[in-house]
Amino acid sequence: MSSTESTDLGRALCIITGASRGFGRTIAREMSRLVKPGSALVLAARSGDDLRALQTELAESEAGKAGLVVECVVADVGQIEGLESIVKASKEAFSDDIDHVVLVNNAASLGDVSRYAKSFTDMAEVDSYLSLNVSSSLCLTASVLQAFPQRPGLRRTVVNISSLCALQPFRSWVLYCTGKAARDMMFRVLAEEEPDLRVLNYAPGPLDTAMLTEARSRTADPSIRTSFSDMFAQGQVLTCEASCAKLMKLLLEDSYTSGAHIDIYDLDTA
Amino acid sequence: MSSTESTDLGRALCIITGASRGFGRTIAREMSRLVKPGSALVLAARSGDDLRALQTELAESEAGKAGLVVECVVADVGQIEGLESIVKASKEAFSDDIDHVVLVNNAASLGDVSRYAKSFTDMAEVDSYLSLNVSSSLCLTASVLQAFPQRPGLRRTVVNISSLCALQPFRSWVLYCTGKAARDMMFRVLAEEEPDLRVLNYAPGPLDTAMLTEARSRTADPSIRTSFSDMFAQGQVLTCEASCAKLMKLLLEDSYTSGAHIDIYDLDTA
Repeated sequence: MSSTESTDLGRALCIITGASRGFGRTIAREMSRLVKPGSALVLAARSGDDLRALQTELAESEAGKAGLVVECVVADVGQIEGLESIVKASKEAFSDDIDHVVLVNNAASLGDVSRYAKSFTDMAEVDSYLSLNVSSSLCLTASVLQAFPQRPGLRRTVVNISSLCALQPFRSWVLYCTGKAARDMMFRVLAEEEPDLRVLNYAPGPLDTAMLTEARSRTADPSIRTSFSDMFAQGQVLTCEASCAKLMKLLLEDSYTSGAHIDIYDLDTA
Repeated sequence: MSSTESTDLGRALCIITGASRGFGRTIAREMSRLVKPGSALVLAARSGDDLRALQTELAESEAGKAGLVVECVVADVGQIEGLESIVKASKEAFSDDIDHVVLVNNAASLGDVSRYAKSFTDMAEVDSYLSLNVSSSLCLTASVLQAFPQRPGLRRTVVNISSLCALQPFRSWVLYCTGKAARDMMFRVLAEEEPDLRVLNYAPGPLDTAMLTEARSRTADPSIRTSFSDMFAQGQVLTCEASCAKLMKLLLEDSYTSGAHIDIYDLDTA
């Protein structure tokens, strides 16, 4: 497959949620290096400070100096106003030269992993979790697809940052597993409906991020918690950079089946 | 397996949502015949008239004449107050003689199947769908498990009425597929967490209900819509009674793996 691999993502508009830290931040950095001149990044997150620091970093990078547009949107993707401001910024950053729109649905929350499913009696808590982690990614994706409809010469790619939790149940992770399973299915339906669209559910593996720290310290189930600690102690946790490199390779090769769930551990190490 | 099959569900408290019509109504009828004297049914639905008609029917049945308690709860499971009234009625219907609590999470809505995923830009619509179809079943299940905690001599069974849509994407059914995938995962996590509990995700097959009529008439995708119509024309749609009989057999045998997704078509026809 590598023989057909492109070396860039095109003149792209890349929209990335949860871009201020962790995996989203790494994706923003990597994408900035893989897009052609004339491209734009729209980076969304709740934390304005972190986002602006990233914007400054990218502006000073080689791509930034070559004219890469980096727009920051301080927004909560769990609120409709947040989604609207991301779409508005994306429309403004778009130009007729753009030949590839890439949306990376990365923003997510872990949910309260310190409790078991039988403790979730508060509908408002579950509703809020699903709104942020499921509804928002459907509504943002739909809005972006409407803002940039199918037309000759425009490629469109939607990435869902998924997890092994979309496929396997983990004790005391009911919200996270439920949300990830829901998102995977949502994007599988989308892939069935829109044959011109490229849809990828990418499970990045256990990453050295704040979310993993939270998982290691707060997971209620002792054996799950221990397995995270062991993973960390044994150096099995991946860097965001290593996992992101695999994701970028998938996007450059562009040969995955649209709608597929691809786990980093499914990929060969080449 | 049939050699170990019990002939009744015990002296049971059966809580059934969406009990006023379709599959839920059939489950209520079948369960009323399979519980021992001293049992109680708590039937929840939004439609009070339909629910009371069922209550009258069951009161006049053999089980009703033998003293089966049938409580109706007119409630919207999409609202916390609705869940609370179901739990309250269940506590009141419980007695120390009860040796089996069975919760059937049957209530569900199809969602708007007349549109494709890319049209779902309204977060309030998606939030509302997920609240009714996902949050409510987690919160009701959690509340029931708390109301009737594990103790020697008390069996507890939770059934999720699932669908092939939990496993496979169908074009123009993004809400339904997403909700069913989410529910399956939620109950798989629950099964992992609570080894004393029996958890079954049962996919009843295409049933001759109002939901199927809606699916046949409103599904946007022409090939999916036609496949429903063909299924109907060719007599491949199942009666609620036939599918419910399979579900009851599973519950009586009680040999399924807790948390498993079992489709009616996976079962032998014996």
